[in-house]
Amino acid sequence: MLRLYFTPGTISLAPHIALEEAGADYEQVKIDFSTVQQNSEDYLALNPRARVPLLMTDEGSISETLAILLYIAQRFPEADLVPLADRFATAKVMEFCSYMGSTVHIAHAHKMRGRRWADDPEAIEDMQRKVPENMAACFEMIETQMFQGPWVMGGQFTICDPYLFAIARWLEGDKVDHSRFPKVLAHRIRMAERPSVKAVMAKGGA
Amino acid sequence: MLRLYFTPGTISLAPHIALEEAGADYEQVKIDFSTVQQNSEDYLALNPRARVPLLMTDEGSISETLAILLYIAQRFPEADLVPLADRFATAKVMEFCSYMGSTVHIAHAHKMRGRRWADDPEAIEDMQRKVPENMAACFEMIETQMFQGPWVMGGQFTICDPYLFAIARWLEGDKVDHSRFPKVLAHRIRMAERPSVKAVMAKGGA
Repeated sequence: MLRLYFTPGTISLAPHIALEEAGADYEQVKIDFSTVQQNSEDYLALNPRARVPLLMTDEGSISETLAILLYIAQRFPEADLVPLADRFATAKVMEFCSYMGSTVHIAHAHKMRGRRWADDPEAIEDMQRKVPENMAACFEMIETQMFQGPWVMGGQFTICDPYLFAIARWLEGDKVDHSRFPKVLAHRIRMAERPSVKAVMAKGGA
Repeated sequence: MLRLYFTPGTISLAPHIALEEAGADYEQVKIDFSTVQQNSEDYLALNPRARVPLLMTDEGSISETLAILLYIAQRFPEADLVPLADRFATAKVMEFCSYMGSTVHIAHAHKMRGRRWADDPEAIEDMQRKVPENMAACFEMIETQMFQGPWVMGGQFTICDPYLFAIARWLEGDKVDHSRFPKVLAHRIRMAERPSVKAVMAKGGA
């Protein structure tokens, strides 16, 4: 049995969708950020890094979005969420996911999580002011250099797609006009029509 | 043929060591940050994200450290740099590498690359002041929660080891006393004795 620890509005949406795409049998446990439940003793015992998503497996826990996504793809190979037989194509999937995690998600995080990197309230406000510019630059890169279409990697739906979808939903809140990126916007609409995404929405995962 | 684009002092050291561990036949091309060569027209044509490392393969380029490391492990399976037959063990390797890329490297980057996230010089200075505290917190997490020993994942040397080694070498510059983390310090000394690391040093990769 798999158990996904998730919080609506966070990047846990990506593995949540991947689990549905895989047809996985899983439980979901909501971690409530409004009560700072991620810092509770019980949750820190599961994930000392106090973050979601976390995937509990029979063998132990996995944190980090990219690691969870690759695990889901490997555990449910019939869903074909990563072209595992092709090491170069797999590398391009991981390249995209790593860019999402280590650049795009970080650009966004400077809006709400500035305290991680600065103490001065004015420094934190300055970071927040730069978020729209940085997120727009990231999505310009995705739109013009990385996105193939109709899915991120071209014809095959992969773990890149829920990752992009989850972060693209932050653009309005980050004060970026999504219509500047028509390919990514069309992808977002395409994603919203998938049964997996509808299922996660119905379960409160977004 | 493989070609690694690298810059001494950067995270390109990690895949550089992995290539040596794998016994790979590869060329190396130095990208000179002192002349901002990463923003040259020629390099942007290879990597529009203007970063190292980049690995050129017969099928195309791969950016992002974690993606390059996994590719090297898959291309040279006899080197056994990731326990590929065990999907959970593979997930734990990816979890560690993702933490290094999306948390530890980012904590460090606020020293030299603050302009990515703020414009105000005082904000950038405030970020720089917090780097020692953040890097120490990351290494406390690694030392107490993640590192198994003698290698990161226990008995097997994996791609996690060059990744940790490359970042641990930044601790002095980040004003963190490495002796606070004796397991990671012993790992660093153990790494420095490996032929792969000595080979990269001799080739100017660090």
